[in-house]
Order: sequence, then C-alpha cells, then structure tokens
Amino acid sequence: MAPDTLTVGLIGAGRIGQVHAENLSRRIPLANLIAVADVSEDAAKRCAQQYRIPKVTIDYHAILEDSEVQAVLICSATNTHAQIIEEAAAASKHIFCEKPIALSLATIDRALDAVARAGVKLSIGFNRRFDANFQRVHRAIEQGEIGQPEILHIISRDPSPPPIAYIKVSGGIFADMMIHDFDMARFLIGSEVEEVYVAGGVMVDPAIGEAGDLDTAVVVLRFANGVIGTIENSRRAVYGYDQRVEVLGSGGAIRIDNNYPNTAIISDAQNVRRDLPLHFFMERYTEAFAAEMLAFVDAVLHDRPAPVTGHDGRAPVAIALAARRSFDERRPVRVSEVDSA
Amino acid sequence: MAPDTLTVGLIGAGRIGQVHAENLSRRIPLANLIAVADVSEDAAKRCAQQYRIPKVTIDYHAILEDSEVQAVLICSATNTHAQIIEEAAAASKHIFCEKPIALSLATIDRALDAVARAGVKLSIGFNRRFDANFQRVHRAIEQGEIGQPEILHIISRDPSPPPIAYIKVSGGIFADMMIHDFDMARFLIGSEVEEVYVAGGVMVDPAIGEAGDLDTAVVVLRFANGVIGTIENSRRAVYGYDQRVEVLGSGGAIRIDNNYPNTAIISDAQNVRRDLPLHFFMERYTEAFAAEMLAFVDAVLHDRPAPVTGHDGRAPVAIALAARRSFDERRPVRVSEVDSA
Amino acid sequence: MAPDTLTVGLIGAGRIGQVHAENLSRRIPLANLIAVADVSEDAAKRCAQQYRIPKVTIDYHAILEDSEVQAVLICSATNTHAQIIEEAAAASKHIFCEKPIALSLATIDRALDAVARAGVKLSIGFNRRFDANFQRVHRAIEQGEIGQPEILHIISRDPSPPPIAYIKVSGGIFADMMIHDFDMARFLIGSEVEEVYVAGGVMVDPAIGEAGDLDTAVVVLRFANGVIGTIENSRRAVYGYDQRVEVLGSGGAIRIDNNYPNTAIISDAQNVRRDLPLHFFMERYTEAFAAEMLAFVDAVLHDRPAPVTGHDGRAPVAIALAARRSFDERRPVRVSEVDSA
Amino acid sequence: MAPDTLTVGLIGAGRIGQVHAENLSRRIPLANLIAVADVSEDAAKRCAQQYRIPKVTIDYHAILEDSEVQAVLICSATNTHAQIIEEAAAASKHIFCEKPIALSLATIDRALDAVARAGVKLSIGFNRRFDANFQRVHRAIEQGEIGQPEILHIISRDPSPPPIAYIKVSGGIFADMMIHDFDMARFLIGSEVEEVYVAGGVMVDPAIGEAGDLDTAVVVLRFANGVIGTIENSRRAVYGYDQRVEVLGSGGAIRIDNNYPNTAIISDAQNVRRDLPLHFFMERYTEAFAAEMLAFVDAVLHDRPAPVTGHDGRAPVAIALAARRSFDERRPVRVSEVDSA
Repeated sequence: MAPDTLTVGLIGAGRIGQVHAENLSRRIPLANLIAVADVSEDAAKRCAQQYRIPKVTIDYHAILEDSEVQAVLICSATNTHAQIIEEAAAASKHIFCEKPIALSLATIDRALDAVARAGVKLSIGFNRRFDANFQRVHRAIEQGEIGQPEILHIISRDPSPPPIAYIKVSGGIFADMMIHDFDMARFLIGSEVEEVYVAGGVMVDPAIGEAGDLDTAVVVLRFANGVIGTIENSRRAVYGYDQRVEVLGSGGAIRIDNNYPNTAIISDAQNVRRDLPLHFFMERYTEAFAAEMLAFVDAVLHDRPAPVTGHDGRAPVAIALAARRSFDERRPVRVSEVDSA
Repeated sequence: MAPDTLTVGLIGAGRIGQVHAENLSRRIPLANLIAVADVSEDAAKRCAQQYRIPKVTIDYHAILEDSEVQAVLICSATNTHAQIIEEAAAASKHIFCEKPIALSLATIDRALDAVARAGVKLSIGFNRRFDANFQRVHRAIEQGEIGQPEILHIISRDPSPPPIAYIKVSGGIFADMMIHDFDMARFLIGSEVEEVYVAGGVMVDPAIGEAGDLDTAVVVLRFANGVIGTIENSRRAVYGYDQRVEVLGSGGAIRIDNNYPNTAIISDAQNVRRDLPLHFFMERYTEAFAAEMLAFVDAVLHDRPAPVTGHDGRAPVAIALAARRSFDERRPVRVSEVDSA
Repeated sequence: MAPDTLTVGLIGAGRIGQVHAENLSRRIPLANLIAVADVSEDAAKRCAQQYRIPKVTIDYHAILEDSEVQAVLICSATNTHAQIIEEAAAASKHIFCEKPIALSLATIDRALDAVARAGVKLSIGFNRRFDANFQRVHRAIEQGEIGQPEILHIISRDPSPPPIAYIKVSGGIFADMMIHDFDMARFLIGSEVEEVYVAGGVMVDPAIGEAGDLDTAVVVLRFANGVIGTIENSRRAVYGYDQRVEVLGSGGAIRIDNNYPNTAIISDAQNVRRDLPLHFFMERYTEAFAAEMLAFVDAVLHDRPAPVTGHDGRAPVAIALAARRSFDERRPVRVSEVDSA
Repeated sequence: MAPDTLTVGLIGAGRIGQVHAENLSRRIPLANLIAVADVSEDAAKRCAQQYRIPKVTIDYHAILEDSEVQAVLICSATNTHAQIIEEAAAASKHIFCEKPIALSLATIDRALDAVARAGVKLSIGFNRRFDANFQRVHRAIEQGEIGQPEILHIISRDPSPPPIAYIKVSGGIFADMMIHDFDMARFLIGSEVEEVYVAGGVMVDPAIGEAGDLDTAVVVLRFANGVIGTIENSRRAVYGYDQRVEVLGSGGAIRIDNNYPNTAIISDAQNVRRDLPLHFFMERYTEAFAAEMLAFVDAVLHDRPAPVTGHDGRAPVAIALAARRSFDERRPVRVSEVDSA
C-alpha cells in the first residue's frame, strides 16, 4: 500500500453507506475501500460486489481489528454510532461518522472523549456544508461581501415524509431532519446558538403526530453574536426537495435557490415554466457527498483538521434537544438549559 | 355634480396625501378632489395649486362642514386619525384613513363605534393589498393553487431607517413598519393571529435603541387556522426596498420577488448582474396606491363593502401591541392578552 | 394660455390616438389637448368627451387652421401621414407623427423637406425607444458597460396576427412590424444599416401569404460600423408579446427579458411556473407611450431637438424596402440599392 | 473478460482523450479501458498511469491489432481521423471518433464506406447532444410541447480564442467551432439544412483574420422542413462560455440558459448579481461527456444504433463548407452546391 493512499473500511452498507462506497471507489483515487460490514450479510455482499471490496463481514469488529484498515466510515443505525466511535477510537482508526452522533449529550461526550484520548480524527457527515451553494454563502460571509451578518433564514423541506416506522426511531424532526439546518446555521454564522423558540405542528400526516413527532416547524434562533435566525422545516413539499438559505448583512444580502435538472424555460399558452427542482438529497447533494468524503480522506492523509469536528457533531444535538423542549413547553429555551457543558 | 362622481376632501397634504391627490386628480375620473386641508398653509396651497383643488384651508373642520364633500381622506399625523374619524363620521362623510388608526385599541374602538353609528364607509390605507404581486399570492391561495396554506414567510426591509425624530413618535417598529406585514399576514391567510413571538434587536443604529425602539425583528405568528408564519423586518437593506412573501401549502408553494426598474442582465468579466430593485415604497407601490384609491372611490359610489375594513385596521394594532410585549418579556404572547375584545 | 404649456391638436382618434389623448390629458400637465379630428364623427366625439377636449371636427384642416394649436399629433391612416405633415408644416405646427411616415422614400423626402423649410419640429412615434428596458440597453452601450458592440439580436413577436384586411393595407411585415426593430437596431447600435439579408416564410396563416405578405422572418443586418445584427419577427407567439434584445460587446453582453404582470412563482407537483408576460403593446409599452409624448412636449416647449428625428423616421423605411427586395430575390441587398439618397 | 463489458483502446491521450479515459475508468463499470496510444510516449505513459491502463504504445496500430480490444476511441489530430477509421473498421473494431471526421467530404465518404463494409459501429463525438439542457429542448420538440418548430436560434460563444497556431490548422471557425452548432441544429430540428447565409468578420483579433479565418459569425439556416434558424458564434465572450438555444414553435417556445457554479444571488449597494457561468466546455459538459461515452458503450454492448451516426458526422461538414463559401462570396449558398451526394 502506497503511503499516500488511505485504506478504508465501511460499517453499514445501507443507502448512505453505498453513496460513500461509490464515491470512494470511483471518484477518490487516494482512497482504497478494502472492507465492508453490514448486519445483513446480503447487503454487505451486494455492496462488496458492486464496488469490488475484497473483505466482507457481518461483524464490524472484524474491520476494527483489521490492521490494514486506517479509517472507518460509520454508516450504521444511529443508536450504534457512539459505541462504534468509542471502539474505533480504541482501535486507533480515523473515523467518519454519519449524523447524529447520538441523541444524548452524555453519550456523545463519552464518544468524543474516546476520540480525544486516542488522538484519531473524527469527522461528522454534515454533507450540505460541501454543497456549492452553501459554500458560496459561507464564502460571501467570510469575505465580507455582505458586511456583518444580521439575519439568517433557512428553508428546508422534504418532498414527502418517511415511513411512520422510520419516524418512530428517528429521534424526531429536530434531531433527524432539522439537525442539518442547525449545523448549517452554525456553519454560516460562525457563532453558537444560545436560544431557540419553536412553533410547529402536525400538518402533513396525523400519524406523525400519533407517533409523538411533528412534521412542520418554524424555529427562531438567537446566536451568541447577536444574529437572529429562522429555520423552517416541512416534511412535505409536493414540488420536491427545497433547500434554501438567505442571509441579510449590514452590507448586503445573499440567497441561494434550489438546483434544477436543466435550465429550460417553456412558454406556451398557459404559462412560463420550468421542470421541478432536483427531487431529493441523493440528486441534490451528489457532488456534496463526494466533496465531503474527499475532504475527510484529505484531512487524514495530510494530517489536517477534520472538516466537521466532533464539536460540530455535538452542538446541533444540543440545539435539537432545546428545540424539542421549546415545542413541548411553548416558550423560548436556552441551549444551556439542556446542556450544562 | 354628476351622481356618478365622488367629491373628495383631503385632510393632510404631506407626502402620502400628495400621492392620493395625484391619483384622484389624474387617474380616477370618477373622483373629484375639491378641497384640501393642512395645518401648514404653505403645504395646503402648494397641493391645491399642483392638483387644481379649488378649496384650501388650514382647518380640516371646514372640509367636514362642507356639504359638497362626500368623502374625506385622513392623511394627517397618526395621533389625529381617530379624532378626525369620529368627527368625519358624525358629519356623515365616508372615510379613507391612513394606517394606523391609532396606537391604542380603546381609541380605535371609539372611532369604529362612531363609524358604525353613522353608517358611513371606512377604509384603511393598507396599500400593499393592492399590489399586483401580493394580489397574485392572495388569488393563488383563494383559488386553491397551492392547496391548504401551512406556512407563511414575509420579508420586509426598508432601504434605510427614518430620522430618529420620526422614530420617536412613530409608535415603534411594530406599529409603524411591521403593521403592514401583520395586515398582509391576515390578508393572505384569511385567519386571525392568535399568538406572536418576537426576537429582535438594535443592529442598524444604536440611536434607535436609545429612542426605545428596535430596528431589526423576526416575529413568529400562530394563526387561528393552524398556519404558522414568520415576519422579518429590518430598517436597513443597503440594496433597497425588499418586500417578499412566500406561502407553502399542501399542494404547492408561491413566492414573489421584488420589482425592478428594468429587466436588463449585464454579463461582463466580473459577474452577471442587474440593477437594484425599485428603491422605496413610492416607486414600488405607485400602482398599488392608485388601485387602493380607485377601490375606495368605487366602494363608496356603488355602495360596496370597504376594501379594507375598520376591523382590518384594528387587528394589526392588537398584534403590534402583543409583539411589543413579546419583545419586552422575551416570551410568546397571545393577542388576547392585550386585547380583551 | 400660459407660455409654459403646449396646446395640442390630435388628428386621428383611433387606438393609438386615444393612447396619446389619455397621456396628454392625465399625465402631462404641461400639455393642453384642445382639439381632436377624426374622419369618423362618432370616434372624434367619443374621444373628445372622454378626455374633455373642447374642439371636435371631422376635418383635420380645422385643426391646422386653428391659431391656438401649437402642435399636432398625426395618428391617422398611414397613407395620409406625409400629406398631413406637409400641410401641418406649412401651417407652422410642430408635429408628432406615428410611424411609418410613408412607404415611399420620395414621399417621405417631400414631407421632410416641408418640415425643414418650415423650421418646425417633427418627432416620429417609435415608442419602444422610451421603454425602460431598451433605454437600459442604450445606456449600457453609450456608457461602455459592454465595451465595443459586436453583435445585436432582436426578437419581436406578436401574440397573434392582425386581420387579413389589415395585412393587405399594412405595407407588409417589414414596413408595418419590423420597422420598429429596424429603428431599435439603429437606436442601439448608433450606426446605419448598409445591407440586409432576409429568410422568411408563411408559417402562421396561409391567408397572409395569399395577401402577398409573409408572417415569419429572420433578417441579418450589417451596420456601417461593422456590427452584425439579426432580427426575428413572428406574427404569432401563443404565450404573448415577446420583445427582447441582446447585444454582445468586446467587454460583455446585455440582454433584456419581457415584462410580466407580477413576479409570482408557483411550484406544485407539475412544475415551477409564472404567469404569461404582458400580452401586447398596449400593456407592455404603457409607460413608454407616456414618456414618448412627454419627450415630444418637452422638446417643443424648450426648443430641444426632436427625440426621434425625421431622418430616424426615414431610415427604417429604406431598410424595410431593402428587406422586401432581399426576400423577393433571396439575396443580400444593400440599402443603397433602394435608396440613392 | 465477461461478455457484458466492453474492452476499449484509446488512440490519442490529449485533453479530450483524457476526458474519455476518466469517464471510462471511473464512471462506466461496463467498460474496460485496456490500452492507450499516443505519438508522444510521455503523454501515453502519463495517461496509462493515471487511469491504470495496462497497455501503452506510441503506435496505434498495436491497438488495432490487439484482439482483446473491441472498440477504439479516436481522439488524435483531426487530419488522422478518417485514416484511422478506415483501418479500425478493417480491423473490425467498433469506433468512437471525435468531430470532425475530416474536412473533405470525399475523405469522409471513404471512411464511412469502410465502416459500412465492416459492419462495425461508428459514433461521432458531438457531446452537446448529451447535455441535460439540450436534451430537454430535444424532448420538448419531440413530444410536441411547443407544437411545430418554426424558428431556431443558437448562440455559442467561447470565452477567448485559441492560439493562432491552433486557428491555422483548425479548419476555420465553421469546421472547428460552429460544426457543433450545425450538429445541434440538425439534432433539434430533425431536418436537413438546405441553405446557409453567413455574415461574419474579424472583431476579436486581427491575427485571426491574417490567418485566413474569422472570429465572429452569424449564420442563417434554411431547413428542408421550412424551419429557419440562426447561429451566432464569437470566439470571445469575456464572461465565459455561452451556450444557449431557443426554439419558437406553433404552440410555444423553449429556451435554455447557461449553467452556473452555484445559485447564489448577492445584493449590495451596487447591484444584484451572481457569479459567472461555468467557464468553458470542460466544466459545462462534464456530465455530457460521460453520458456520451456511456451511450456509445451501451450501443456496442447491446447492439443498438450508434447514438450519433456517420451521417451525423458528415452533414455538419457539408454545412460548414457551404458556410465558408457563403462568407467568401457574400451570398446564400445551397448545401447541394458543395455536396453533390
């Protein structure tokens, strides 16, 4: 193995695991995906065959014990993330972990401690940070193109809700869906969220409410640096995936629109129209997933800071916990109320 | 005087009074502007001369006592609106009154009672309702083009703050500026606002804070019909007047953009760009002001309901009061807390 | 009559005459429309009543002989324009004349000679020059925003063809419709057209072909300064009036889009769409017609050059003649072939 | 070798050869790139190393003689294309060849004859046909979304001219650059071009004129089915690669815009702007190149018609020859004048 490539093991061969497998094997020559684990033997084997991964297992410990593996991707069920992080850190593997790390701050802290003790790199899968549109907003703010940021608006709508079975184990809309937006808010504004207020409800499907969750929410964020933000989430936009951001600053404003499959405009006797935007995250964030993985591989190979740190993985979970409390108690909640850290 | 024209007296010849004078005299042949009053004799005379108004006075009572006058436009200082409404109603004049009617609900109620007793028509100057963009959103919702509304977003930014002297007598950002947006929210959603939550601050000019006001605010609205809304106001957008709305519904979404002085797109070695949007409300709402006045004249002449009722003038004031309390107490406030009616 | 207002007589009270009557009486306080003539007594009377014009006649000579009239608007049938120009010039009236002056260069020359001898002002009704979009393109070129112009593209499509009866007396697509575009080409590029090549046909309605005309044409222009241009005309765009221009220069490019009744974008399960553009020239050029008339009134009152000169009225007719010959002979034709001047 | 993969040899490892090598090795699992030839040994070796191609040669005959190779990609200099096609056909290799096949129709015909005799597949590298925007226009026309096509406009501008040394051997703007647009015109309209008229000149760089070429051209096309088209080419658009198309039909119109690196809109005190479009063909057509290669591999593996036929490769060359003659003789030229076939 040349010293300038990274050998990787994949833990979890579900939808997102396959995305990373494809990117690693096809688009990142510096990475070498050599092992895959999945509790479903079928899933593991199909993935191995499709991406020519030599080692296959149903037990991820085999990957952790494999001295040839330098880094692991944790793409298993959410409730296993923290445990595997701890074990991987103990095995001195660098770690890429899908979001969220866990739904409990104490669990997350234990995992982050293990990472710190082991001195390995940990990067969290907030893929949207690597999208060209969000990157452009980030750059505009960093470079002062809009002056001092004052107000942030995030709109984030899914085309349709996931199955109720998924809703029940998802951790709820704040930890499962809006967590991406909490991360984006921190990423763009570069300041911590101190307080949240939630107005939300069940507008899409009563079964979501019966499962104890909500499907529509508007959140107000107050940042430490004074910026005020809003996030809107809906589990259903019939026209497809809707991911937009807008920032007003003292010197101007920036906003991004969705991505579309083509630029064609058709005018006929009825209206002037275009096709629907890219339908869901697999289409919209194809390039972002590849860039995210490349950034992780690059960080490990060149000993650079993880592109999305453990702290970046923890902070949105705290905000999500505060948001849920705000929804339950119908009042603004300070993040410090749920996070004594 | 032909029975199919309306004779009008103008009370207050300031900026907005002149807008109405111009529309009445140039664009509404069915109206006949025959009198103007202003506490400044100069202002009254200049207006009379410019629009060929035969009767001029510094005392609006002369207009109320003029039997030739069928309707009055109240464009004087806000703190005189309610008093003049009462007197005009007593004089059996139909009334068009600029917003807000007053800053106190009791004062408004007394004025509305007088109007009800007199059986005259009262219409309130929420001009944005007559803008082609907002009208289109209203129509889309009414006609079910986006299904059942679920979420509303309003962005409303001024190019730059008014003088501090104005701020001090304005009634504050909620009653002076956001009141338009509270009205728009009710107009579009067709339901009453039950609760508001405000996050705001002083980001533009510390002097505004010293005057006891804020210059930047984000408000969350809960409507009786379950819709959730946000309104964002900033006293400063360096690129000009920014007035946008977006509504998500069960069957789709609609959003409007600003209006621009032209459609030209210039591409050069730096970027692809267009000119700034229409700078402020006089440019943006030129047509809306004319349509508003035409609707009032038409309602009186044909005995149709006032286009914007007294209740429409009162409700946003109650929301504004609740919003101020929410800001002061940093908690969601039900409108019923400030309005026992 | 105050020396700072212009007394105007209107000759021809058809559609375009009424547009000018409305603008003069409602939007241009410096003008005083005191007389109207139309061969149809009914039309003349209706126009007089609507715009409160005191003098009405079926014989335009009454207007030419009226010493109170300082300027006339010639909005009668095309084949009367030149004759009336000559007579109006002889009567020392300033003249605004609708396009085209005439369909024969000799006839035009005689009219322009009369104007020159009389020393009156003559302005031609190329209203599009006063549209905000085209003005913006003109300004971009003048101010060097796109460097040296190299290529021009004009698209100009009507929503649907006029009646065949009109087609037969219109002078054909080049003199009736594309003449606006020939003028726009000269206005924007600031150079004379030396050669034209036409490819065209009958695609919309065979009856147009039977009337000896075509309904669809693409024209290539070569300007004296080296710029190359194209003009496309179609008598039918089912989505409405389509009026666009694009210029490529050494330092960039500028293009304009159509105007729309509102900015609303609706997204639903089918597509992302907006309403059709403003349907035809009365809606699209409302403001341009007013600005055009204001510019004429202003030029006369302040003795400034006519905004669109007699030469500007003549040149596009020469180009139209060359275009027709190019179509007939299927070859590029130099304008000098049809115009020995 | 599994029967369901295609073994490929690459002839020519320059810029476009490398694009295909990357797509074959990374994005098309059904292809197996096993050999590369380039007259420059360095270039061949670098390419082989980068894409792990086992066989390397400076003599393409080695690839033609390699029985393991099923298909070849001809990406060598234009003047070698036809000769290699003949040899590859004789060796029973399927062929993908970059445009143009040759600059002489007789040479092309000899190559196409060889292909026909050998019964191999030949596909030509008109990559834009596989771009999502152009595909959408094609689909709109095919599915009748705009009715019967009537007028076509193509704008195609390069960011800056190639080196003069390249211009001298390029075959000229029509055969080198506009050939893509001739192909696009045929692809979209689905009819043959019968006549062309060219207006062009040297506006960008006098050295291009001294080399016997032009750098700016507007072409009018007449199609056999009556459609009229224009193509505009400029060797320089300072804002980047500009590739747009518009089609007017009896039932509507469709137009496409450029692709941009992001959707961000920045508003500040100067203007409302976005970043420049994707700069050149490598960025703009990344996906199109991959789709093109996939279509070729798929056609060979499943014995389907070549996606871009030999005839499709020949027809634009004939149009280019007619265009050059039109420019030289300043008259419309029928394609049959240069092509007796």
